[in-house]
Amino acid sequence: MKIAIAQLNPTIGDLTGNALQILMAARAAEQQGVRLLLTTEISLCGYPPRDLLLDPGFVDSMAASLEQLADDLPPALAVLVGFVGRNDSSHFQGGKPIFNSIALLEQGKVQQTFHKRLLPTYDVFDDKRYFEPGLESNSFVLDDVHIGVTICEDLWNDEEFWGRRNYAVNPITDLAELGVDLIVNLSGSPYTVGKQLLREAMLRHAAVRYRRPILYANQVGANDDLIFDGCSVGFNCVGDTVCRARAFESDLVVVEFEQRDLQLGSVALMPESEDAEIWHALVLGVRDYTRKCGFSKVVLGLSGGVDSALVAAIATAALGQENVLGVLMPSPYSSEHSIHDALALAENLGIQTHTLPIGELMQGYDESLAELFVGTQFGLAEENIQSRIRGNLLMAISNKFGYLLLSTGNKSEMSVGYCTLYGDMNGGLAVIADVPKTRVYSLCRWRNSKGEIIPASILTKPPSAELKPGQVDQDSLPPYDVLDDILQRLIHEHQSAAQIVAAGHKPIIVDRVIQLVARAEFKRRQAPPGLKITDRAFGTGWRMPIANKWVSGMGSGGASLGSFSVPSTELALQNVGASELLLKLPD
Amino acid sequence: MKIAIAQLNPTIGDLTGNALQILMAARAAEQQGVRLLLTTEISLCGYPPRDLLLDPGFVDSMAASLEQLADDLPPALAVLVGFVGRNDSSHFQGGKPIFNSIALLEQGKVQQTFHKRLLPTYDVFDDKRYFEPGLESNSFVLDDVHIGVTICEDLWNDEEFWGRRNYAVNPITDLAELGVDLIVNLSGSPYTVGKQLLREAMLRHAAVRYRRPILYANQVGANDDLIFDGCSVGFNCVGDTVCRARAFESDLVVVEFEQRDLQLGSVALMPESEDAEIWHALVLGVRDYTRKCGFSKVVLGLSGGVDSALVAAIATAALGQENVLGVLMPSPYSSEHSIHDALALAENLGIQTHTLPIGELMQGYDESLAELFVGTQFGLAEENIQSRIRGNLLMAISNKFGYLLLSTGNKSEMSVGYCTLYGDMNGGLAVIADVPKTRVYSLCRWRNSKGEIIPASILTKPPSAELKPGQVDQDSLPPYDVLDDILQRLIHEHQSAAQIVAAGHKPIIVDRVIQLVARAEFKRRQAPPGLKITDRAFGTGWRMPIANKWVSGMGSGGASLGSFSVPSTELALQNVGASELLLKLPD
Repeated sequence: MKIAIAQLNPTIGDLTGNALQILMAARAAEQQGVRLLLTTEISLCGYPPRDLLLDPGFVDSMAASLEQLADDLPPALAVLVGFVGRNDSSHFQGGKPIFNSIALLEQGKVQQTFHKRLLPTYDVFDDKRYFEPGLESNSFVLDDVHIGVTICEDLWNDEEFWGRRNYAVNPITDLAELGVDLIVNLSGSPYTVGKQLLREAMLRHAAVRYRRPILYANQVGANDDLIFDGCSVGFNCVGDTVCRARAFESDLVVVEFEQRDLQLGSVALMPESEDAEIWHALVLGVRDYTRKCGFSKVVLGLSGGVDSALVAAIATAALGQENVLGVLMPSPYSSEHSIHDALALAENLGIQTHTLPIGELMQGYDESLAELFVGTQFGLAEENIQSRIRGNLLMAISNKFGYLLLSTGNKSEMSVGYCTLYGDMNGGLAVIADVPKTRVYSLCRWRNSKGEIIPASILTKPPSAELKPGQVDQDSLPPYDVLDDILQRLIHEHQSAAQIVAAGHKPIIVDRVIQLVARAEFKRRQAPPGLKITDRAFGTGWRMPIANKWVSGMGSGGASLGSFSVPSTELALQNVGASELLLKLPD
Repeated sequence: MKIAIAQLNPTIGDLTGNALQILMAARAAEQQGVRLLLTTEISLCGYPPRDLLLDPGFVDSMAASLEQLADDLPPALAVLVGFVGRNDSSHFQGGKPIFNSIALLEQGKVQQTFHKRLLPTYDVFDDKRYFEPGLESNSFVLDDVHIGVTICEDLWNDEEFWGRRNYAVNPITDLAELGVDLIVNLSGSPYTVGKQLLREAMLRHAAVRYRRPILYANQVGANDDLIFDGCSVGFNCVGDTVCRARAFESDLVVVEFEQRDLQLGSVALMPESEDAEIWHALVLGVRDYTRKCGFSKVVLGLSGGVDSALVAAIATAALGQENVLGVLMPSPYSSEHSIHDALALAENLGIQTHTLPIGELMQGYDESLAELFVGTQFGLAEENIQSRIRGNLLMAISNKFGYLLLSTGNKSEMSVGYCTLYGDMNGGLAVIADVPKTRVYSLCRWRNSKGEIIPASILTKPPSAELKPGQVDQDSLPPYDVLDDILQRLIHEHQSAAQIVAAGHKPIIVDRVIQLVARAEFKRRQAPPGLKITDRAFGTGWRMPIANKWVSGMGSGGASLGSFSVPSTELALQNVGASELLLKLPD
């Protein structure tokens, strides 16, 4: 029996367009003699539909689209399509009104439906907000082959593999006990760095443990902050990889099931390195967000720094040089080399630039505020004005010409708040908001290894916001390798201050970084969606209170903060909603 | 037996401060001869702690604080304290690692613990993201009185009252079958308009149905977007109200349990009207967000319009006239009456003002962009520049002096995107973001009925953004009573376009409003936290995709949009991240 995986790129809520994609894949599969076609989780509406699921009209339309699709598909092909099923008994028995479901379509009809059993409710996942879990094992028989059906999380609860249980039940064990010949999994599993290695280790473990072949179909494409990498894959019952779809691209993979096992087919290569993987993920993220929101061109500020250089390079790869506009907005504090570096970058990329000096606008604000600010020192208020002038100019261009504004802040600065709200944070999409500064450099080097486009001086000069004379980032922040290691431990590994210090960091630095992360919450709350590439990104999976006295790893804030002798006005300023102050770190 | 409810105002994560509040309430209760003291849901850390619950150090510290509190409390007083309990079996059996728990503290020790059984996972609630549900009925015996313990949602599943089940189990039925003498409920139930009437109807129904007295203890105070109204209340077993704590204030209510029933005690009055209720809610919301974030003063732009007038009045009531700064930023398009009205309002409120004309800054931007914008018409890009100049000036003042910036946009404009991202949307808190424009007027009239402070002309003139000569809101939007009714049906009642039209609205208007709401998602995503007063506010309980082809009530976007002959560039502009364009409605 020939089985195919349609690794497609749906747009959320585009029922007609997504059904058409499935239909075209089905016709291509039929021509190759395929008997069973797999799509991915909720393939008809795309994953994740979020609160569209609360709209009864949306659920009704999806049911109608499913019927129509069943009618349109080649009748002799069996197709598994993800949709949203109704839980008709919820009214009387309690529970959510819908299921996360799969329909088996064949001969113009819905032959059978299956419901997702394990509902992830962590990180970006809110499955229990919407869905009732299925309680039964899901399987069907096709041409004497007994096939077990699972949906995404159903496969992620192997206590042998994880060393702990996440859910009371294990749908894979249940299917093995049912004696199925093959297990299929239809997923909407977002990309994070290195995740495919983890998935394949887990799938291999399950194939070997239960001596069953497994076919894993994953969505591809980006939807808002989430990038889906595809990488659909199959394992035979001794744990060999028998097929793999391409990473970060739509694909149709065909594999043979014979002699009660999957046979070796086409195995696409994985990206060569983590940097390659992240690069392709971000390129896909920019392309899909731009396209799915109805834009064709983007604009961004080019400072001559490494962050905007990387974002410009990614945008150019995603959309083509003719669709990227770089804007230089030098101030009197901008260095000659910054302007030169930005122009050299643009020339290498072949993108258009405009230069809009902001000195006179800075003077205008100074004059407007002179009376009110009389007797005060140049400080963060004045630094932020510069960043907000630039933000305003970029939005004016965006509004005037209909270009999507990309923001260029990295994860290190988003973590500690080294960025200006309503200034450099402006944009429809924050391309590298989940990329730590050290990774920004390694991505640039990786890209340059394929042909130098980012001028070397951008990678070698000390990073600076250039908001006052002679300023460099390391006036206010520890070196980025130190900062990024502390952030990794704090944010990803939930380490306490004591644990981070035990790893070799200075206590004063650790405490300051922890405080800065807590206090920057108000900025992150107003940030644009950022493309997620790690297991803990700011955004939909990060839900922190703002008015909050707990400082992670340091206990209730009051006392700890006092011990650093920070003036209380500065603390208040940083705490919420009003200021972009950073504590100056002592030497 | 005397029982008291400590209706307290915790700050999220302030374990020490919250424990101290409980301790002081306990001492006051002890002096009144109280035997049992109730606090509210997770009273030790405050509700909702959100992702602080993912920090193992936070859970550890709460356990330590609970032990300390048990030790500090008067030993002969029994106290129910909300905390986070560990689920020690989750590692082996699956499930979340913590419970939403109540500890019975007495004689210096934790005598018993109880776990929340029904975990809300809808709207702003994410309980299943963090907690494992308790599986057992919760009760204890104190001086021969058998007391059933429930936590918030445990009480909200009466199929007789709601006409449907929300969960498979009903903890109240279970407790009645156990034969408890009294049911207590410890809640963290956020305010929405009219909610106390609903709560009391539900509690009365349960008291009568099960012939059991019920004591309901609710948190008071605001945490970020959520306002908790308190209004703790008791019902005897025939459904009479026996006590009620004050709305929107901390309180300690004592009631007698004798002869197997609650006896009549002190019953605070409810606010006189919905407008009164909302007013007090917003005042509390502003006061608590400001205070809990470490600010004492606020700043806001005064346009002479009704929205900023209402916010200024609320802020003055919350913080005192000496802590509110109003900034007038007239442009050449500002009318004389706007400036006059803003100054008259400030004088009535007794707040300080500054006037910063923006004409020269507007010219500065025009000159900077002249070459780039040559040959284009004055339009939304230029309108937005004005709004963003004002946003930049306000943030400069906020940064310079450490004042919290309040934003003044109402729900009607947030719904349809009639607001400028990075302009008038700027702020740490969006005070009236969940208040429809028609309600803005009625709140102003209610406030004026207590003594006129909002000049009559502000309430009678046609609303205008004054971003170009002669502009009024109704050039771009339907009349606000029409708009607000459509929005109520669309957002709160999940009605389809057809249903809204059937209610008497013009199809063309309904379709345009639905499109505008869908397209403004990118703006709402970057809005400051807004105080929630309705059952469906934008913010933490509103989780919509941005890149999305579904237009609520109208099916997949593409085709429907085409039928309105909207130029595709305008659509793209509005769709995401770049523009503040509004469709002009035809006459």
